[in-house]
Amino acid sequence: MALDIQPVHPLTSRAHKKEDTVIRIGNHTIGGGTLTLIGGPCSIESVDQVMSVADSVKNAGGQVLRGGAFKPRTSPYSFQGLGGDGLKILKKAGDKTGIPVITEVMSTEDFDEVEKSADIIQIGARNMQNFHLLKRAGMSRKPILLKRGLSATIDEWLNAAEYILAEGNSQVILCERGIRTFENYTRNTLDLSAIVAVKTLSHLPVIIDPSHATGRREMVPAMAKAAVAAGADGLMIEVHNDPENALCDGPQSLRPEEFEKLAKELRKIHEVVNND
Amino acid sequence: MALDIQPVHPLTSRAHKKEDTVIRIGNHTIGGGTLTLIGGPCSIESVDQVMSVADSVKNAGGQVLRGGAFKPRTSPYSFQGLGGDGLKILKKAGDKTGIPVITEVMSTEDFDEVEKSADIIQIGARNMQNFHLLKRAGMSRKPILLKRGLSATIDEWLNAAEYILAEGNSQVILCERGIRTFENYTRNTLDLSAIVAVKTLSHLPVIIDPSHATGRREMVPAMAKAAVAAGADGLMIEVHNDPENALCDGPQSLRPEEFEKLAKELRKIHEVVNND
Amino acid sequence: MALDIQPVHPLTSRAHKKEDTVIRIGNHTIGGGTLTLIGGPCSIESVDQVMSVADSVKNAGGQVLRGGAFKPRTSPYSFQGLGGDGLKILKKAGDKTGIPVITEVMSTEDFDEVEKSADIIQIGARNMQNFHLLKRAGMSRKPILLKRGLSATIDEWLNAAEYILAEGNSQVILCERGIRTFENYTRNTLDLSAIVAVKTLSHLPVIIDPSHATGRREMVPAMAKAAVAAGADGLMIEVHNDPENALCDGPQSLRPEEFEKLAKELRKIHEVVNND
Amino acid sequence: MALDIQPVHPLTSRAHKKEDTVIRIGNHTIGGGTLTLIGGPCSIESVDQVMSVADSVKNAGGQVLRGGAFKPRTSPYSFQGLGGDGLKILKKAGDKTGIPVITEVMSTEDFDEVEKSADIIQIGARNMQNFHLLKRAGMSRKPILLKRGLSATIDEWLNAAEYILAEGNSQVILCERGIRTFENYTRNTLDLSAIVAVKTLSHLPVIIDPSHATGRREMVPAMAKAAVAAGADGLMIEVHNDPENALCDGPQSLRPEEFEKLAKELRKIHEVVNND
Repeated sequence: MALDIQPVHPLTSRAHKKEDTVIRIGNHTIGGGTLTLIGGPCSIESVDQVMSVADSVKNAGGQVLRGGAFKPRTSPYSFQGLGGDGLKILKKAGDKTGIPVITEVMSTEDFDEVEKSADIIQIGARNMQNFHLLKRAGMSRKPILLKRGLSATIDEWLNAAEYILAEGNSQVILCERGIRTFENYTRNTLDLSAIVAVKTLSHLPVIIDPSHATGRREMVPAMAKAAVAAGADGLMIEVHNDPENALCDGPQSLRPEEFEKLAKELRKIHEVVNND
Repeated sequence: MALDIQPVHPLTSRAHKKEDTVIRIGNHTIGGGTLTLIGGPCSIESVDQVMSVADSVKNAGGQVLRGGAFKPRTSPYSFQGLGGDGLKILKKAGDKTGIPVITEVMSTEDFDEVEKSADIIQIGARNMQNFHLLKRAGMSRKPILLKRGLSATIDEWLNAAEYILAEGNSQVILCERGIRTFENYTRNTLDLSAIVAVKTLSHLPVIIDPSHATGRREMVPAMAKAAVAAGADGLMIEVHNDPENALCDGPQSLRPEEFEKLAKELRKIHEVVNND
Repeated sequence: MALDIQPVHPLTSRAHKKEDTVIRIGNHTIGGGTLTLIGGPCSIESVDQVMSVADSVKNAGGQVLRGGAFKPRTSPYSFQGLGGDGLKILKKAGDKTGIPVITEVMSTEDFDEVEKSADIIQIGARNMQNFHLLKRAGMSRKPILLKRGLSATIDEWLNAAEYILAEGNSQVILCERGIRTFENYTRNTLDLSAIVAVKTLSHLPVIIDPSHATGRREMVPAMAKAAVAAGADGLMIEVHNDPENALCDGPQSLRPEEFEKLAKELRKIHEVVNND
Repeated sequence: MALDIQPVHPLTSRAHKKEDTVIRIGNHTIGGGTLTLIGGPCSIESVDQVMSVADSVKNAGGQVLRGGAFKPRTSPYSFQGLGGDGLKILKKAGDKTGIPVITEVMSTEDFDEVEKSADIIQIGARNMQNFHLLKRAGMSRKPILLKRGLSATIDEWLNAAEYILAEGNSQVILCERGIRTFENYTRNTLDLSAIVAVKTLSHLPVIIDPSHATGRREMVPAMAKAAVAAGADGLMIEVHNDPENALCDGPQSLRPEEFEKLAKELRKIHEVVNND
């Protein structure tokens, strides 16, 4: 239920709530000092693909499986995702592997369907200020992962989260995925200082997506390690069993064995950083 | 009806359609060499306000009245617009003054209602890649004014328009309203070279919004003149009868007499530029 | 001579000097309501080339001839300009045609030599915060054209000019040449709102360089017209007698006949804008 | 001595030289797997200040002392540094503590003097494309630390380094210090992906300056750790014995005890990352 009156401090702020927000997903908690690894393909393509990647993610110690059923694509002629069929595949893979799943919702029309299948609901960068979608997410009882818009300031990002909290859903995970700058070597510029900024201003957990930020597989491990060292609560990383033939974002997807190796390294850095 | 197959050239491209798209609104045409002036308040606040501004816009030779009923606001605690009541006020003002009206739609849920009241339907910068909203707009028979996203490339902007055309609505007006850069003297940086780029790549008309781009009333006239000189098909300008007490964007709104003076100057420049 | 104490208001500010700064070059004045057209090649290549373009610029009604002798190039292996030999060619062309010349100085070492040959001395975008060069320019008695840095704020740009004025040279012309943004259709994004900002904050004249800003010949005329409509004091435009074989920036150079046509159109727009 | 002909591959590229460039400073080597910590005040203010900080840097395990004698300042009325007197203080502190020193050179005129006092010579962000200064640096036999320009692409940065190598000085250290974006929470946006990009494209060592990038003391430790985790060869961090009374950049300077604590943490992360 939406707030009738404006709170003294924004609901997302540390001034409103001092202690870190911790979100429970199955046996795992996100935020408050843990390290969450989310892995999976950009797009759900087939049962075999998702099953294979789900096993890999679980074996690598990942806690959440990602996979896109509804895909926001720049061109109307690009592959738009498998939609409802994709959701079913993802849920099946999650159930069978015993691993929670996250997927993106692009519209209020699809929200109910996504809400039934997903353990965490993602709102993408392009919808960060789709205020109707944010309000609908605020009425859900599932955790929401809210990506930062491509040119959103940290203030705007927290305000977008505020739309969700103001409707009654306090389970929000923020996800930085690169901002748009003049530099073109990488797809976007990963703004890791956003981790510190968000953790100073807000009690919400923050996750980093180095795959979309860089658009280059060879940069993902270093940026993932940097994110953990900077204090991120987790990573969302694209993993594909056959990147060369992926329908979407192959060049930035790790192979399962690369993800497994990286996961180990991230846990070591997390341990060092947390023991300081 | 959506296309089943991808066209050889994008529907928005000059390669697909050589001659300028011209859009008829009442007795006026947008595109193809005319100058279209759209004026009105950021937000619809009251019957008196809108009626007063509508008269001013018409007297100044403006062809379209703008007014926001559904307002996209960064914070959930800011004034969100009068919604359906605002639409009624706008329609009434348009009917009484005999001037077509444009207003923003923020969601597919509100689309039918907006479509009934508005002569032109606006999709705002924050929704430029709200693909469901674009598809719904593509099924409408009303012209759509599509604002460029805050950090959208020209290519992405044209692709967003392509979503609308691909669904069967070829009446799309593009609107540049400033992009996000490091410069903070202005709210955004008005990219007037986008006019030439769009007119080279596409047959669609392009309109400039200097009010949102600069965020400063004293800069609006110069930027409006520059837009006409650069070949824009029109301007969308915020006009308010009492900017000091406006609920939204007062500092960037022209007073009626300023709009009238500017309209005259713009017509002169348009004449000079078109006679070259 | 440098100031011993900080002035109450910056020397570049309107608060310090209310009336527009007007700079006399031969029989022409820059600033204060006139329109100044500067044309010429990116690089000085040969006597014939410069003579040919000098005649074209003069015939088109241009008041100043530009030509680069010392060229700032991203790569050390690119053509670096003819240096001192280039200066001689430029001066000869200016003397013969009776048209003042402007050329860029890249270092304090070359300053004396450039100062002797040029009527206006240009400091390029990459040297906008080369403070030693600015101080040397402040000790010159020749007018200085100071380009805005690629990512310089208006405040930083005016502060760079302040370095020149603080050393005693009040003849500074500001030149906007595009800023760096995420958009890649154009080389840079021409920020025409800088004209209004500078004229509000400062008494110095401001000139626009649409050639470097856009990097595309076909965009230069529209952007030049827009600049005049926005209130610019002049334009600096690349003109080449044989753009296809230019050693530098051919794709953005106008041919002489294109420059002549544009010059006429600019004067018409200038007249309309100034009569308002 | 400058190259007469262009090399097949740029001298800065991995294609030209496969193995990492390693630079010897006293007993320490920069690059090739070591971790270099450079600490010290933004500006040299007094003998006592520099001596005190030099001791702190050394005790914390830092290998190089930084301190600015010639300061590039946006406004001509800001403190410009102690100049030659500052150099003497820095050299004295370095000699007494037995720690090498780095300081910025802003012009070719001051180069000889700086070269005599400094063990590493810094070229600042605003001078990254001051090509005369780069050429002079290329003739030096001292290592050069070249900061990335505020809006320089990685390609431009490597080309700036190429100017130095082309003149015969192969001892170049690259330093990322934040790029200019729309985000204003931090002074600039630290681009840590530049570490991976540079190490892929080039054999030169790369150092990160989190102090200037963020402009906020509380963000420096997290960003420094992230830089090490991402593979940086070192850090340059502002340290001041009395930040509240610093003449320059106090709010971003660490206190000596903070620097010491951070240095320990950085070494731990470096060890973990290097053992992977």
